Amino acid sequence: MVCFVLSGGFGGKPGARRAIRMSAEPVGIGVIGCGRIGQVHAKTLAASMDAKLVVMADPIVDFAEPVAKSFGADFVADYKDLVNDPRVQGVVIGSPTPYHAEQIIASAEAGKDIFCEKPISNDLEVIDKCLKVVEDKGVRLLTGFQRRFDPNFRKVKQEIVNGAIGDVRMFHITSRDPAPPPAEYLKKSGGIFLDMISHDFDMARFVSQSEIDEVFVTGKAFDPEAAEAEDFDSVVTMLRMKNGSFGTIENSRSCAFGYDQRIEVFGSKGTLTGNNRGPSEVVLSNGEGITSGLPFSFFMDRYTEGYRDIMTEFVDMIVNQKEPSVGGYDGRAPILAAMACKLSAAENRPVFLKEVDV
Amino acid sequence: MVCFVLSGGFGGKPGARRAIRMSAEPVGIGVIGCGRIGQVHAKTLAASMDAKLVVMADPIVDFAEPVAKSFGADFVADYKDLVNDPRVQGVVIGSPTPYHAEQIIASAEAGKDIFCEKPISNDLEVIDKCLKVVEDKGVRLLTGFQRRFDPNFRKVKQEIVNGAIGDVRMFHITSRDPAPPPAEYLKKSGGIFLDMISHDFDMARFVSQSEIDEVFVTGKAFDPEAAEAEDFDSVVTMLRMKNGSFGTIENSRSCAFGYDQRIEVFGSKGTLTGNNRGPSEVVLSNGEGITSGLPFSFFMDRYTEGYRDIMTEFVDMIVNQKEPSVGGYDGRAPILAAMACKLSAAENRPVFLKEVDV
Amino acid sequence: MVCFVLSGGFGGKPGARRAIRMSAEPVGIGVIGCGRIGQVHAKTLAASMDAKLVVMADPIVDFAEPVAKSFGADFVADYKDLVNDPRVQGVVIGSPTPYHAEQIIASAEAGKDIFCEKPISNDLEVIDKCLKVVEDKGVRLLTGFQRRFDPNFRKVKQEIVNGAIGDVRMFHITSRDPAPPPAEYLKKSGGIFLDMISHDFDMARFVSQSEIDEVFVTGKAFDPEAAEAEDFDSVVTMLRMKNGSFGTIENSRSCAFGYDQRIEVFGSKGTLTGNNRGPSEVVLSNGEGITSGLPFSFFMDRYTEGYRDIMTEFVDMIVNQKEPSVGGYDGRAPILAAMACKLSAAENRPVFLKEVDV
Amino acid sequence: MVCFVLSGGFGGKPGARRAIRMSAEPVGIGVIGCGRIGQVHAKTLAASMDAKLVVMADPIVDFAEPVAKSFGADFVADYKDLVNDPRVQGVVIGSPTPYHAEQIIASAEAGKDIFCEKPISNDLEVIDKCLKVVEDKGVRLLTGFQRRFDPNFRKVKQEIVNGAIGDVRMFHITSRDPAPPPAEYLKKSGGIFLDMISHDFDMARFVSQSEIDEVFVTGKAFDPEAAEAEDFDSVVTMLRMKNGSFGTIENSRSCAFGYDQRIEVFGSKGTLTGNNRGPSEVVLSNGEGITSGLPFSFFMDRYTEGYRDIMTEFVDMIVNQKEPSVGGYDGRAPILAAMACKLSAAENRPVFLKEVDV
Repeated sequence: MVCFVLSGGFGGKPGARRAIRMSAEPVGIGVIGCGRIGQVHAKTLAASMDAKLVVMADPIVDFAEPVAKSFGADFVADYKDLVNDPRVQGVVIGSPTPYHAEQIIASAEAGKDIFCEKPISNDLEVIDKCLKVVEDKGVRLLTGFQRRFDPNFRKVKQEIVNGAIGDVRMFHITSRDPAPPPAEYLKKSGGIFLDMISHDFDMARFVSQSEIDEVFVTGKAFDPEAAEAEDFDSVVTMLRMKNGSFGTIENSRSCAFGYDQRIEVFGSKGTLTGNNRGPSEVVLSNGEGITSGLPFSFFMDRYTEGYRDIMTEFVDMIVNQKEPSVGGYDGRAPILAAMACKLSAAENRPVFLKEVDV
Repeated sequence: MVCFVLSGGFGGKPGARRAIRMSAEPVGIGVIGCGRIGQVHAKTLAASMDAKLVVMADPIVDFAEPVAKSFGADFVADYKDLVNDPRVQGVVIGSPTPYHAEQIIASAEAGKDIFCEKPISNDLEVIDKCLKVVEDKGVRLLTGFQRRFDPNFRKVKQEIVNGAIGDVRMFHITSRDPAPPPAEYLKKSGGIFLDMISHDFDMARFVSQSEIDEVFVTGKAFDPEAAEAEDFDSVVTMLRMKNGSFGTIENSRSCAFGYDQRIEVFGSKGTLTGNNRGPSEVVLSNGEGITSGLPFSFFMDRYTEGYRDIMTEFVDMIVNQKEPSVGGYDGRAPILAAMACKLSAAENRPVFLKEVDV
Repeated sequence: MVCFVLSGGFGGKPGARRAIRMSAEPVGIGVIGCGRIGQVHAKTLAASMDAKLVVMADPIVDFAEPVAKSFGADFVADYKDLVNDPRVQGVVIGSPTPYHAEQIIASAEAGKDIFCEKPISNDLEVIDKCLKVVEDKGVRLLTGFQRRFDPNFRKVKQEIVNGAIGDVRMFHITSRDPAPPPAEYLKKSGGIFLDMISHDFDMARFVSQSEIDEVFVTGKAFDPEAAEAEDFDSVVTMLRMKNGSFGTIENSRSCAFGYDQRIEVFGSKGTLTGNNRGPSEVVLSNGEGITSGLPFSFFMDRYTEGYRDIMTEFVDMIVNQKEPSVGGYDGRAPILAAMACKLSAAENRPVFLKEVDV
Repeated sequence: MVCFVLSGGFGGKPGARRAIRMSAEPVGIGVIGCGRIGQVHAKTLAASMDAKLVVMADPIVDFAEPVAKSFGADFVADYKDLVNDPRVQGVVIGSPTPYHAEQIIASAEAGKDIFCEKPISNDLEVIDKCLKVVEDKGVRLLTGFQRRFDPNFRKVKQEIVNGAIGDVRMFHITSRDPAPPPAEYLKKSGGIFLDMISHDFDMARFVSQSEIDEVFVTGKAFDPEAAEAEDFDSVVTMLRMKNGSFGTIENSRSCAFGYDQRIEVFGSKGTLTGNNRGPSEVVLSNGEGITSGLPFSFFMDRYTEGYRDIMTEFVDMIVNQKEPSVGGYDGRAPILAAMACKLSAAENRPVFLKEVDV
């Protein structure tokens, strides 16, 4: 049961008031992975009045067990024990990508609702297999595109849905990392389209409210390490959507001023701009100029609210039997677009997505 | 023991990395008051890896006990049971103002470190009594001026300390509530200087790094309810600080665009401006103008990070035996300034603070 | 005759169109003073299709005559020859302050409309004498408060008049020069209230739409040269207006980032902020921050449009027989306020303007 | 002779001082075309101390002669009389495009320096013929890409040249008109690439400091009138430059919030953003949002400084025998790019510029 109780008892200063949401029976959640992202989700769950963090799982016991304890959660080394724990109603998968598919399937077979970090897999056939099991077992799968929960991008989407800019006609997505990953990582990353731009393909679908139909790519490796990995570090992708809108994504693996994640959507009645977020809104004016602080340079700082709010949706999805706003198909579409982009870059021509679908 | 462990095990994407702070032995905290502010602090403590929320206390049992349970904390009706609980190392006082003094004294006598929401009291002699007990018992008292922990105001202060603007010469603090409190509250509020502007007196001390020496006040009641309560709803206060800097505070009980909390500090080498914060950084451009979203309209939204980070300092203060950055004297100084302002308004003349001290 | 003709003949690209205003008989103007300000007005008049710059006057012939010639104007050394030139319908007085009164009187007696740079005089009795002659002779006097014609301050005023913020309740004017004038100038300046803040008193009247009733001043000399001149270089002035609104002016003789001229007006329905203007709207984002360019650091750059548009009003005032928007009384009121501020500073008390009026 | 004289005589307030540039012998200029653009240039010349507007020419005598008179200039109906006037050292061509080539040739043959509005022609062979005559006769030709003189775009370029962002890697140009031209105009416009985007091709060359090598185009007609004219009204153009940088241009014939002309240049050390300009920097904060004014909606307002400063360069180019910063070749390159874009759109493939060159 979920009810709303007005703040009472030892109250504070009058003025604006807030209803405090309380769940009489918090929903039980298990988190697979005690690393960075697992801890982020665990903190959100620990502070939630609607959920109870029951158990965490991780094979690296020495490191992981104290983490679980610090949140007051039980600990298991084997994720299967977590999946089959009867107290667990929802499974949060925060393990490395190669484990995602088997853990989705195990969770679905145990009848548990699932949150999985992106990507489900970089292999379209593996993704399709996961989606089928999820569908067959009648569980829900929320895919971890946390950027959709970023306050700025979510607000852009809401205003589009509200009709604030009329019909979406064009868009421009800027997506730059502060610095390239290590050379070793680059070689195994699957390439910039899968590793980095897949997030932006999702964002293009999110704001255009349509599917990607055709792509054309221009890219370059300015950094010798990217060249050595036979990858681009700087890319412009042009996207034609099925609804007739079109736009561009501008990516770079390095950006002198931090993590640069912005979007501009141009419609028949106006333009929406989702800007960067940063740690403060302080301006220093001196003889050098009028200077405001840098945006966040780390993606987990930029998407603090995104990670929190996607977990809140996960709990709400279970409690209130809702459909996920970002499902399994949303995890598949960006992988397909990445395949088409690779081909476009290789052949210097526009490519339809249907050319590369399985 | 507190140690730093690099994120490992199920790691995420390479790139920027964060050390995860882990406390082998989380510090035990009790929270007095299960209302709005008590819940805010309880959430922070529940998500902390360094603290354990042991127990909550509140006389309104029916409402409060489920709140405590939802955070996995024990519950007691009588705060004295909390104060004397041997697992409790730090006491968070989130009860109504009239209870603060006795709860500070009880906590100090039990040898517990204390966080108390502002004000300690509106009576200088009561404050002085509390401060004496705290000193005699050798405990630490952190006073709840959460604005000092607001990312913007904190950044302004850091840059001042870093010398970014040279010597502070003048400042202007803007502090407006979105809407006046109910008429009934106004009559019992103690007046706008104690109820509202005391926060701004603290901010003036914070950025000028000095004590208020003399004040002069101009005010007016534009709202009939304020007039009926024989109070102002709009005030400009001029402050002369002991170090020769001076400035103004502009207050209003109502502001059409929300909760307006800004500060500008002018120094010999530059100016620092701490702006408002809001839920998003999205801009809509259409035929009406270039419009960005409103700032937060509720003080608990504006000071989300402030409430979180002051609690983080409280835990850190206990764990690492540090002195509080905002102590008992900081709770006294704004009350004294409020007394001087009342006199200035009554007699339409500048008033030195020493004229009204006890 | 003034008419409007649509651009024709060799037209440009279609789209937005502008009516081109043409005066069949341009009005003849004489400019007294060929220095900096005289040249500014001469340029505006030379580019105007409604006015003809007939003659310029200046006693420093060697310097001034080529200036006049470069604008295609006649030259006279003695301003009386200009005032009495039958081709001259309007006289622009851009000479030093000590000459203003006699040149106003001579122009009025010659039946010419007058534009005079501020101040008319720093002596209330001299001003009153000028105003009487102007009135007696039935000519018009436009006073050179060019800030009222600044696009930002003018827009602020327009929106206030349009009701955008409801009733004006409070205001805060920021007015800082980039650097103090030479010590020698300071000693003869008449003090910061007359020399600098008189502009801001006018701005307070402009936005509050009321007269100053009472003032209170806090000031300080941070710069030894200001102290030596027995003047302040940093001042906060509190103003109570006759209509019940009130506000503050914050002045400094030096400002690290340039010429800082802003205003914020707070009303019952919203707030208007008039920001600085600068030479460009370019932003550089790098590892140091997000930096936009400095505002103009020179008052004639900041008020380029102000100087242009006040001259446009002067021509229009003559052509269309309109009353000036800033008349002689507007030149008197700030001088009176400056007198009251001097007394407030001397006696550390609030002072009513009527206490110092003649 | 050009000299610098410090402002003297009737001086103003001390502080920042400006040298007043004076030319003992103003250069004589003739303006062909008394329409909108001709008047703009005439005003600049009339206010210049270095130039003298000698004569204007336009075949529509009834309209044009009073225009010339209002600036104190002589008038001729036939541009050949202007070109051959011995007082004229420089010719400003502000006539419709079809006349540009013959007027350039006539001016060159008369040995006069030339300013010509863009485009010289839409036919590459005609342009080449003009450039040859200009070269043969040894005169200078300044081409009217006034956007290069926009304070924002010029500042962007200066900072690039100064090394503020290291090597230019990518750029994104936004260029939107407030509203489409009439249907009749559209049909004769030569298409959006020649009519509108040619300006942006120039901007791409300006900021990348390189030549366009290859283009790829995506476009669409959202407006039925554009479709009827067999033209796009919305286009994204991808450009690969010869120096390895690349970028995109986003164009629309209509934009709900006005004339939208921005540029973002991304380099190895930072990013430069040239924003829009507008009539004021006033912000209204009320319950609807924090709203700043619209940018200029008319290109002649946006480029006020651009039109003024390109004319200033023209005068300076003649007086000081300088090479034009935007010459005849700069007028040719965008026309070539437009040809390549038409082919890219027709064949949905990337096109090298050399494929379409004559």
